[in-house]
Amino acid sequence: MITVQQAEKLILENSCDYGNEIVLFDQALGRVLAEQIKADRDLPPFNRVTMDGIAVKYEAVANGIKNFKIKATQAAGDVPVEVDADDECIEIMTGAALPYSVDTVIRYEDIEIQNGTATLINNGISKGQNLHLKGSDKQQGEVILNPGQLITPQVISLGASVGETELRVKRIPRVVILSSGDELVEVSDVPSPYQIRRSNSYMLQAILSQHGITGAIRHIPDDEAIIKQQLGLCLQHYDVMLLSGGISMGKFDYIPQALKDLRVEQVFHKVQQRPGKPFWFGKHENGAVVFAFPGNPVASFMCTHRYFVPWLNASLGLQPRQPMYAILAHDFKFEPALEYYLQVKLHYNKEGQLMAMPLAGNGSGDFANLAETDAFLELPLDKTEFKKGEVYKTWPFNA
Amino acid sequence: MITVQQAEKLILENSCDYGNEIVLFDQALGRVLAEQIKADRDLPPFNRVTMDGIAVKYEAVANGIKNFKIKATQAAGDVPVEVDADDECIEIMTGAALPYSVDTVIRYEDIEIQNGTATLINNGISKGQNLHLKGSDKQQGEVILNPGQLITPQVISLGASVGETELRVKRIPRVVILSSGDELVEVSDVPSPYQIRRSNSYMLQAILSQHGITGAIRHIPDDEAIIKQQLGLCLQHYDVMLLSGGISMGKFDYIPQALKDLRVEQVFHKVQQRPGKPFWFGKHENGAVVFAFPGNPVASFMCTHRYFVPWLNASLGLQPRQPMYAILAHDFKFEPALEYYLQVKLHYNKEGQLMAMPLAGNGSGDFANLAETDAFLELPLDKTEFKKGEVYKTWPFNA
Repeated sequence: MITVQQAEKLILENSCDYGNEIVLFDQALGRVLAEQIKADRDLPPFNRVTMDGIAVKYEAVANGIKNFKIKATQAAGDVPVEVDADDECIEIMTGAALPYSVDTVIRYEDIEIQNGTATLINNGISKGQNLHLKGSDKQQGEVILNPGQLITPQVISLGASVGETELRVKRIPRVVILSSGDELVEVSDVPSPYQIRRSNSYMLQAILSQHGITGAIRHIPDDEAIIKQQLGLCLQHYDVMLLSGGISMGKFDYIPQALKDLRVEQVFHKVQQRPGKPFWFGKHENGAVVFAFPGNPVASFMCTHRYFVPWLNASLGLQPRQPMYAILAHDFKFEPALEYYLQVKLHYNKEGQLMAMPLAGNGSGDFANLAETDAFLELPLDKTEFKKGEVYKTWPFNA
Repeated sequence: MITVQQAEKLILENSCDYGNEIVLFDQALGRVLAEQIKADRDLPPFNRVTMDGIAVKYEAVANGIKNFKIKATQAAGDVPVEVDADDECIEIMTGAALPYSVDTVIRYEDIEIQNGTATLINNGISKGQNLHLKGSDKQQGEVILNPGQLITPQVISLGASVGETELRVKRIPRVVILSSGDELVEVSDVPSPYQIRRSNSYMLQAILSQHGITGAIRHIPDDEAIIKQQLGLCLQHYDVMLLSGGISMGKFDYIPQALKDLRVEQVFHKVQQRPGKPFWFGKHENGAVVFAFPGNPVASFMCTHRYFVPWLNASLGLQPRQPMYAILAHDFKFEPALEYYLQVKLHYNKEGQLMAMPLAGNGSGDFANLAETDAFLELPLDKTEFKKGEVYKTWPFNA
């Protein structure tokens, strides 16, 4: 049986590039940029006034001039107006382009205006004050965004400021979520005393949605022929299959055989972890990848965050996220030689430390507990005693 | 001028309840639950088998019986089959309901099956092993979800498991984003040398989208009559107006007067903070609230995260988020008596500490810098020297 780290490596080696597509800039939130974007002009594009007031020559102030005739008023967007003499000024608004004949802005709070003349009432004027200089953020032609950048609101704004109305982004794989097992009924159905409702698929669909993917949902019965036919169809129409259930050693778990018959090559089966030990991963000759998770809700949930999401990010070429580390707030014991994913509730203390409070729940079938937790703490398989104050890698799922 | 803390308090006092609505459970991601949900039956609903293998009476094993005749095979979802004798067993699958006549499950790995008889090959069987007991997670009638809960994938799954196909959620306010200023042109236009593209509105729209809100966008020119007419229309059709620009002391900033004429009561104007000092907040007699942010991109961005998002969460009755604290990774100096929002890049070190690396940029007009940062560090106004290793409250914006 392979370790979590080996499983992760094999999965990342099987990441795929699904190519690029063009989207409108205001529809690009959450996508991954697939092009380099350069400034089409300097940022700011002119010496930008940052306070409302008057624009003067600093030399005039230094020479003791206190009264300035207002030659013109210039709003943001207006063509700049030049002064002709040292004792002239331009009344000027935030966002306006500074005229070439002046170099300093004095805000309204530091002047009095009467009969078209502004009089300085405060000292301490410095040369070049209240200006945001042309090109001081970025120069024309400078790269401002790179491929692999997650498109956040700030990125949309930055792209918009240089006129990028369309963005080239990574194409998202087509994903189908497959549940199996005759014990599962629809959410709207009333289960018999021995059945349960099919909730896993909707949980996985919601996680996909958090990552910008509209996942299709299918349910297949425990029937060998139907399983094979349905899996075969999905392999033709989807890039990724997420299976939940049907891969353990049970007599009615026909899925591993069906995948084999359909020429999905097993990359690995079983990982030294809890929950999620029976996790199966494979790849079809056409490139489709198959993540077959155990049917237990916590196992499916953990494996999706621990394996599918990093695979997705690698496939999209997203710059890797920094790992998160948290401090265990209570002692915890786990004896089996498996990497244990402990459910925790996170909080920051006033020392800037991330504290992880264990809420272990009742194991991999207990998904009521998941709704109250924030993250999994990754507890290494070669330890059994985990002490308060020790630090472990953390996989947040409500971020 | 009021402090950040006073501004926050006044804004939260003006949060509004927009009522409830019903949505389909699989469309509820990111919404806030507005009802209590109880378990319709025990979770799990039966003594659930957690390993594939055989179900036996523990007493039989304790009495030395090693060979068990397989009376029947029971899949998940099947009606349980009872044994008649101590040396009988049921071959049973993960997810099946345990028959009453047995109490312990032995996994395939610990037995050998030949000619319809299972033989124990390992010792160390414990009574009741490999079972997830009826009602051990939640009891029938027990509250499993409360109002104010953010609807995560786990919550969707938990609701689905108890048959909640529709969820009562908080209604989302209708929000319009208004930009103003004749210096602003459309993103698709080529600006004159003194104009810039209108990127702020799209940034705010994207932040709203991260919070499940489809924000409308309007632009109004610097014309007193049009401003008043447009603001008046918006007050009729929206619950919230987010204005970007037009509220400083400039000669062409007609907006404060127009809002006054339209009977939007000013709650405050100006906050002791940088960026965003000219921030104006008010409320109309019909209940509509107006957040008027300065037009500088960083100021608009910061104020949206620092004021609008907490207001929104309070209005939706969302359980408040724990504050985040981070450790300043470099010395930083800021002299004005203003609360300073320092742009930082966050990372966790291997001691579980959240480190904040300052990337101050060029001030409130420099939004190129924002794309590279993660959060604002809130630096108190009564200090000027901020030392490496000190801890400050942190407002993440890429989480």
